[in-house]
Amino acid sequence: MKVLVINAGSSSLKYQLYDMTDESVLAKGLVERIGMDSSILTHKPTGKEEVTEVSDILEHTTAIRKVLEKLTHKEHGVLQAIDEIEAVGHRVVHGGEAFKGSALITGEVKSEIRRLFDLAPLHNPACMMGIQAAEANLPNVPQTVVFDTAFHQTMPEKAYLYAIPKVLYKKHRVRRYGFHGTSHEYVSHTAAEFLGQKIEDLKIITCHIGNGASLTAVKDGVSVDTSMGMTPLEGLIMGTRSGDLDPAVVPFVMNKEELTINEVNSMLNKHSGLLAISGSSSDMRDITDGMEADEPNATLAFEMYEYRLRKYIGSYAAAMNGVDVIVFTAGVGENSAIVREKVCENLTYLGVEIDLELNKIRSGDPRRISTPNSKVEVLVIPTNEELVIARDTHRIVKEGQ
Amino acid sequence: MKVLVINAGSSSLKYQLYDMTDESVLAKGLVERIGMDSSILTHKPTGKEEVTEVSDILEHTTAIRKVLEKLTHKEHGVLQAIDEIEAVGHRVVHGGEAFKGSALITGEVKSEIRRLFDLAPLHNPACMMGIQAAEANLPNVPQTVVFDTAFHQTMPEKAYLYAIPKVLYKKHRVRRYGFHGTSHEYVSHTAAEFLGQKIEDLKIITCHIGNGASLTAVKDGVSVDTSMGMTPLEGLIMGTRSGDLDPAVVPFVMNKEELTINEVNSMLNKHSGLLAISGSSSDMRDITDGMEADEPNATLAFEMYEYRLRKYIGSYAAAMNGVDVIVFTAGVGENSAIVREKVCENLTYLGVEIDLELNKIRSGDPRRISTPNSKVEVLVIPTNEELVIARDTHRIVKEGQ
Repeated sequence: MKVLVINAGSSSLKYQLYDMTDESVLAKGLVERIGMDSSILTHKPTGKEEVTEVSDILEHTTAIRKVLEKLTHKEHGVLQAIDEIEAVGHRVVHGGEAFKGSALITGEVKSEIRRLFDLAPLHNPACMMGIQAAEANLPNVPQTVVFDTAFHQTMPEKAYLYAIPKVLYKKHRVRRYGFHGTSHEYVSHTAAEFLGQKIEDLKIITCHIGNGASLTAVKDGVSVDTSMGMTPLEGLIMGTRSGDLDPAVVPFVMNKEELTINEVNSMLNKHSGLLAISGSSSDMRDITDGMEADEPNATLAFEMYEYRLRKYIGSYAAAMNGVDVIVFTAGVGENSAIVREKVCENLTYLGVEIDLELNKIRSGDPRRISTPNSKVEVLVIPTNEELVIARDTHRIVKEGQ
Repeated sequence: MKVLVINAGSSSLKYQLYDMTDESVLAKGLVERIGMDSSILTHKPTGKEEVTEVSDILEHTTAIRKVLEKLTHKEHGVLQAIDEIEAVGHRVVHGGEAFKGSALITGEVKSEIRRLFDLAPLHNPACMMGIQAAEANLPNVPQTVVFDTAFHQTMPEKAYLYAIPKVLYKKHRVRRYGFHGTSHEYVSHTAAEFLGQKIEDLKIITCHIGNGASLTAVKDGVSVDTSMGMTPLEGLIMGTRSGDLDPAVVPFVMNKEELTINEVNSMLNKHSGLLAISGSSSDMRDITDGMEADEPNATLAFEMYEYRLRKYIGSYAAAMNGVDVIVFTAGVGENSAIVREKVCENLTYLGVEIDLELNKIRSGDPRRISTPNSKVEVLVIPTNEELVIARDTHRIVKEGQ
């Protein structure tokens, strides 16, 4: 079965085409600047040359049509005909409490995703545009949705409720949902396989640290806590997000600076985090470069980032009464040896010991960076959210046949 | 030297009179309902009978005059004359960054406390009323201020800064300050004395859990991190305060429920925490009673409270790369055996082991509840913020003489 995976943002659309017989990627690509002038389509067919095309793509339906043209193109294509695509899997950010796993798209499923616009006003409407665009182009192909929140639906009440009036949960669904679920699920399962152990027997802390970043505590094979909350703002310091904050700071700053609700949200999500502390960049590569050049603000940004991350690892060790495995993944987690080194340096109280040479090796494969003596296995596992979406889609569509 | 310690709230005033030759308490008491009708003065002279007096006390100057009358009263008094009081020490909640320790009151000190009204609009103005009332009644007596924040001024930047635009720190002093400093200082030093070790050699986590609650990480003898932030709202779940929350929940709820800044602050500070979850009480005694009666909301409130507290202990163990001593203090910390038991039950990964029988003993003295095998010393140490204020006042006034 060939599965097309789609990850739609408000002005972008990523895609990957899988052949599920061997889980190989036939092609992948990206449409950027949808709705603006000079939209860019970048198409990478496996084993062939990458092509880039600039044109005006005003909305998502056209974007997917252009992608399908590329996938079946004589020169750049990887398919003989469009009907080789047997299923489409969509990444959807927010599944609320309704979705505890991936689902075949039906009218009811789409209504439920619309009901969740409220909780994810920036993300879910974009996902819905991707779904509608794919339906318009591939009307007879079964489609599924895979949610960033679903893996965390196993959290117990004590982890997902906030200590605020209950009416806010009942009426407005205010609770912790967590995000990056497909990634946390993928790397925790891959970690167990890598170690040759049952996931049910392991206490795992997965650190998905990219531009967005979250930690998850995985116990008995399921998510028991995660650092992002009702929205992706809570938790770690991220590229441009503040993460945790005294909640009283929000009204205080709104009052002092006369900010509206939208403005304070924008400040905390887009103008905070590493960017605000360093004053120059939201990218960890720039931060570590700045630190090596003894730039004080970059050094402070790194220290705050590392400190918050380490405290969360400690917190989840307490949540599970111990930790057997720590996994680093995503952009920073997979590539920043210095972040991993500094975090682990002050976790010796847990028996963490990493091999500094192993830690420096770059690789696209799952690997161990802890020493044989370490009481905690420390792994670097490249994440693959698209593969999880393709697998879930394949399974759901096969089950339905 | 006899020192009068004053803790003024907006409608209340607590006092304690110390004889610093032996640090004994000569009398203590409380004026309630200041500014309302039927104010109540409760006066407890040591070794004599407690007296209660109901009258209309319209402001703090009258309140202190009434207290001084009681202290020198023929029958209920403990002093021959008012001039035996050689110093007055005031508790002040917020010292900002200006005060890294206690201080003799001068015009400049009072101006600085006024400049901090902004950061502690509910607390500092009340403290100032107490200062002015004491000055009016005892114009020739040296007075000092002891701040809840001062002990935490040793925190490093990475612990006290938030990852938000720096202009908010520079312009509005938005940062973590922490509170309960006199208590964290007192119990951490008492813990080291109790263990016969130098505080500089210990990694200590102090849990001040009363109606308000905060944790502090004490390393090299100083506070390196604490759970309350710019305001006392951040951190643990408290009687009526939410503690940590996705910061995005604040604007979301303001928008949905059309709340003003004051209303959302009131909701998070006065109508959240244990009270909101249990739906019935902010008092841990009621919560544990409810839990024993299998009341689901009380059980959930307890579980959330314990879970958050335990995660913070784990977080601070990671902050210090280990922990040697955990101290429980304040109302809940000193009296709730079940809170201590449940928290420690899931800290065995740190080598924590408590003696369940020792844990049940009630006492007003510092005591160990961990077993001889425990890798972490777990202590219960009754706090004494008034004594710290009296000692600091005594020291400062003597140094000035």
